[in-house]
Amino acid sequence: MGVDRERRSRLVKAMRRHRLDALVCCTASDVLLLTGYWPVMANSLAVLTAEGGCVLVVPEDEGELAGQHTDDPKIGFAPETLTCLEPLFDSLREPLRHALKQVGVRQGCVGIRQQVTEQPSSYVVGSSFHQTLRNLLETVAPEISLEPCDELLESERDAKTPHELRRIDRAVTIAQAGFDRVPEVLAPGLTEMEVAARVQMAFDVTPAAKEVQRSYGSFYCMSGPNSAKAYAAYALTRQRRLEQGDLVMIHANTCADGFWTDITRTFTVGPPDARQQEIHGAIMAARAAGLKSIVPGVPAKQVDHAVRSVMEQRGFGKAFKHATGHGVGFAAANGAGHPRIHPLSPDVLQEGSTFNLEPAAYFEGYGGMRHCDMVAVTAKGARVLTDFGEEGA
Amino acid sequence: MGVDRERRSRLVKAMRRHRLDALVCCTASDVLLLTGYWPVMANSLAVLTAEGGCVLVVPEDEGELAGQHTDDPKIGFAPETLTCLEPLFDSLREPLRHALKQVGVRQGCVGIRQQVTEQPSSYVVGSSFHQTLRNLLETVAPEISLEPCDELLESERDAKTPHELRRIDRAVTIAQAGFDRVPEVLAPGLTEMEVAARVQMAFDVTPAAKEVQRSYGSFYCMSGPNSAKAYAAYALTRQRRLEQGDLVMIHANTCADGFWTDITRTFTVGPPDARQQEIHGAIMAARAAGLKSIVPGVPAKQVDHAVRSVMEQRGFGKAFKHATGHGVGFAAANGAGHPRIHPLSPDVLQEGSTFNLEPAAYFEGYGGMRHCDMVAVTAKGARVLTDFGEEGA
Repeated sequence: MGVDRERRSRLVKAMRRHRLDALVCCTASDVLLLTGYWPVMANSLAVLTAEGGCVLVVPEDEGELAGQHTDDPKIGFAPETLTCLEPLFDSLREPLRHALKQVGVRQGCVGIRQQVTEQPSSYVVGSSFHQTLRNLLETVAPEISLEPCDELLESERDAKTPHELRRIDRAVTIAQAGFDRVPEVLAPGLTEMEVAARVQMAFDVTPAAKEVQRSYGSFYCMSGPNSAKAYAAYALTRQRRLEQGDLVMIHANTCADGFWTDITRTFTVGPPDARQQEIHGAIMAARAAGLKSIVPGVPAKQVDHAVRSVMEQRGFGKAFKHATGHGVGFAAANGAGHPRIHPLSPDVLQEGSTFNLEPAAYFEGYGGMRHCDMVAVTAKGARVLTDFGEEGA
Repeated sequence: MGVDRERRSRLVKAMRRHRLDALVCCTASDVLLLTGYWPVMANSLAVLTAEGGCVLVVPEDEGELAGQHTDDPKIGFAPETLTCLEPLFDSLREPLRHALKQVGVRQGCVGIRQQVTEQPSSYVVGSSFHQTLRNLLETVAPEISLEPCDELLESERDAKTPHELRRIDRAVTIAQAGFDRVPEVLAPGLTEMEVAARVQMAFDVTPAAKEVQRSYGSFYCMSGPNSAKAYAAYALTRQRRLEQGDLVMIHANTCADGFWTDITRTFTVGPPDARQQEIHGAIMAARAAGLKSIVPGVPAKQVDHAVRSVMEQRGFGKAFKHATGHGVGFAAANGAGHPRIHPLSPDVLQEGSTFNLEPAAYFEGYGGMRHCDMVAVTAKGARVLTDFGEEGA
């Protein structure tokens, strides 16, 4: 797979702007940003210097996977063997020391994440480092000065490179297999769990997933009154049985080798009634207004304003309870992901920014409707990555 | 649901032993240990004092879920609203201040996790705190002294209370629905992805899941030569097509409201041949020897020795490439979970300890066989939580 030269060059420039001599990352999506490889167990470390030198410290049993994604030099480690039962700290210490030596980091300013961040799951379990990365670096390189690089990483994740955009497109193609199945599946009497499981299965077995190493993620189903609660930060599939006339929200967060989707479509059980058509009309008009407002250099809050104004004009201002979107790609559902398409956002759209656009309306006790697309900013305006439909079932 | 008094009393005793006045936890499985509630977005905080006072700081949109699991007082917070776009640090600051005040923590020694730990995923995304919990506490309670409580938490997770054991039993019952489906599903020509998806679906729709709020997790399928790689720290379903005579490993890490399973069964496509029967015989004999050795007070390494000795006697010593097991319940696949059933383990079995027992044999280029049970230690010996079978298909 080589190395994404464009990404490397942007990171090196950003490090120079921030006067950092190196970055050391441990969270899986940061390692993906730096190297192109998305660690499974989230206990890999990536070191990148302002001269462009990069080393990946990776568990030996992930070496083969990593090798398919990056040509960067790798230093293997064994977190546990039959003749050694030591804490991860000890397993990482010497490999990190070697990695720093290999790229010539002995002193100077090194950036590490210090603040809480929302991270997508790379596996059913993953490492949480707490203060271990700091402690490791203080142990193996006491002369370096540690600086926070949270803002640098969040900013650099905003605009994707052409290579990263292709990887996100692939993740969307795989997720579409789930959404394509929905109309055949919806029927009164089925539980939300049963609907979600059938959609999930279409996603799980799609041949499109053969293009990637690791494809997984979750489809959620929220129906009737449960869909009215879908403005929460999380989706939750329950045991409720679908009824004729229900709004049914199908939400996906899926991933292909570390690149995530965040997509929602809302269906009806049977043909939509007048009220549902009215809400749908408002959401589609809001979506169109949002898309039209997207171009590099536009403040992200203007996109929120464009969408929100239409919802307000149509009488659904109060029902649209959340921001219009947030950055996606390296994360699934990260409300803090740049660019934040929020009324108070300080962010500005860049070419290559990818985010979701999710006009929605929620009515307590009745239901909710959301149409969540993923969008990329091109020089000419918005490109909708999720250009597939929804319909009654 | 009330409060698990037995758990509370054990934690209070442990805090007194460690001379801690309070614990403050942010990782989801620690919050589960302290309160009985497993946060979705992993940005909740739990405070527990040595006097037994407990407060949960929880996002408002998780309040209803939390209320079904614990009667502890709750302080809600909103990570993001339309009129507020602030970092999580700021959203948590005042709620944490109130929480500490409510239980009377102003000074003294407060334990927080400082070291890297393997955490199960509570959702497709979750918060990684890095240094934020420390920074929050230094900001809102500058007079307290922060101490590491990693070892306390890992030790206390080892022996489960009767209430926790019932919750683990329920998680196992739900997972069994997947394994029950395997024999009907296995057939030459299907891909590993297709097999895993069908087993997953049986798990996803089982009525047993109605007993819990959140049931999910992953089933994996590794066949033929791919199963020989299954000694890695992670499981990976690939696109390989099953062939007649293959060994097929089905592995599950599933969860019910925060309590995890870690189960593997190995099947054959068609009737097992002589070699497969020989390996199977060795693994079953090793399992029996391991189970027989289990009783409170026994060093965990003796259990590993009992299992490993049989594998060695049968000629499969080298093929058994990993430790015999590790603690399970609060985590899925945490190699560092107490008790570690490892040749070098310093741990001693306690009544209520739950761990897996996974005798296995891996042959590069041919295949692997593993039988991974979950076991609880009772006063009388081992209770196998996963007492269901495997057979040819």
